[in-house]
Amino acid sequence: MVGAGDVALSRIDHLLVANAKITVISGSDIHPTILKYEELGLLEKLIRRNFKLSDLIMYEPKGIREKVHAIAKIDDDDGDDDDEINPLDTEELELIDNFQNLKFKMVLTCINNYPLSLRIWQQCKLLQLDVNLADKPKNCDFYFGSIYRQGPLQIMISTNGKSPRLCNRIKNKMLVPMFENLNLDSAVENLGYLRNKLRTEIHPGEDVKIIKERMEWNKKITDFYTIQEWCEMKVELIDKIVRLYPNLPSLDNL
Amino acid sequence: MVGAGDVALSRIDHLLVANAKITVISGSDIHPTILKYEELGLLEKLIRRNFKLSDLIMYEPKGIREKVHAIAKIDDDDGDDDDEINPLDTEELELIDNFQNLKFKMVLTCINNYPLSLRIWQQCKLLQLDVNLADKPKNCDFYFGSIYRQGPLQIMISTNGKSPRLCNRIKNKMLVPMFENLNLDSAVENLGYLRNKLRTEIHPGEDVKIIKERMEWNKKITDFYTIQEWCEMKVELIDKIVRLYPNLPSLDNL
Repeated sequence: MVGAGDVALSRIDHLLVANAKITVISGSDIHPTILKYEELGLLEKLIRRNFKLSDLIMYEPKGIREKVHAIAKIDDDDGDDDDEINPLDTEELELIDNFQNLKFKMVLTCINNYPLSLRIWQQCKLLQLDVNLADKPKNCDFYFGSIYRQGPLQIMISTNGKSPRLCNRIKNKMLVPMFENLNLDSAVENLGYLRNKLRTEIHPGEDVKIIKERMEWNKKITDFYTIQEWCEMKVELIDKIVRLYPNLPSLDNL
Repeated sequence: MVGAGDVALSRIDHLLVANAKITVISGSDIHPTILKYEELGLLEKLIRRNFKLSDLIMYEPKGIREKVHAIAKIDDDDGDDDDEINPLDTEELELIDNFQNLKFKMVLTCINNYPLSLRIWQQCKLLQLDVNLADKPKNCDFYFGSIYRQGPLQIMISTNGKSPRLCNRIKNKMLVPMFENLNLDSAVENLGYLRNKLRTEIHPGEDVKIIKERMEWNKKITDFYTIQEWCEMKVELIDKIVRLYPNLPSLDNL
């Protein structure tokens, strides 16, 4: 995050909810709440100086990009359609992991300096990093929208930047009242538990036919009970249901 | 899209709704609907042969990555904190544009060959392309979720891959009934029109104070009318409202 004012804070709040590791860079005034976050250890790093372009690769080991580019390079000069697809070796796979974990997943700018913001956007494009310039929807690889969250369930409302405030109202006036009395995170957990149990114990196997059978029953059983029922189901009941595979047992009989 | 079966088709349907330009590569059976799409000119390209790794950069001009990497390279060896941030020249900016437009935005695999899928994932990581392997949530940079769409308004329901079917039900049983009688795309258009009119005619200017004033009023006026009222508003009425800036006029008086 380049910048540390009001807008930066609201982005940081979103990112914290999503468990992001956040680095903030700002040479000017820092919002007191962001300072508080730093004190509480919620930020990965707070850097109190002006941004420089090399900050965009600050966590990447020196030379890693060159190595990655070298591995990525494929000789396709022969025009042969049947090029062999060679597996990578352990060292190469490790490099991919490192690169994935140490480069920035998202870059955000919330500063009142459009030329600098735009230069950061350009550098992100050169480095192939996803970037979001506050209030410049055309320079955004991703948008925040308004997000309603209940554990693993996320509902995002977006107008592709056309009316963030309407998104906010739809969330607060329509979604919150509809969902607040439903325990949808339990429903997600319950369905995940059922799927996992089916795959590992009741009907295991990885060939296409079996995967299809599991998928089919998963769809049917998900639709068989109401959303409310999935929210309130206990583990013992799910165990009973999955043991009756491939039936669709009525709850009254369990 | 690598693969052209049932799952590929359902992804392609999502992508078409989002106006994506889609290239499909498959050496095995192709779903008849995908063939139909090809006939109708809905696909950018359908390639009927086995996938090869160089397909991932098939639209990129030869050597563009090397040029991009060369521009991206910043010498930061002096450890000086006050490195100058130099602007790019026209040729460099053009290169960024080209690269952005000609590399794949997303890569998807829907094939019954996990080793190949995984190798494609690795290659995408090396090339820094976002990728989604069907049914392997851990190898996904993005998820489809269930999307409810009304023009520019999009509501996406996701469980990070934990229960796609529940997302689907929440959409069909809860969101569709709530939104189907509301013309939310008009609301988005109306609010966009209002914002634009305010910015270009009524209260123009790009300095921080003016931007803040516009943002403040935008928030207040968005919240001042109901969502229903924003859906049904006519252009003439919006013109009247925006001319009364910075007031918040009651609809009865207009």
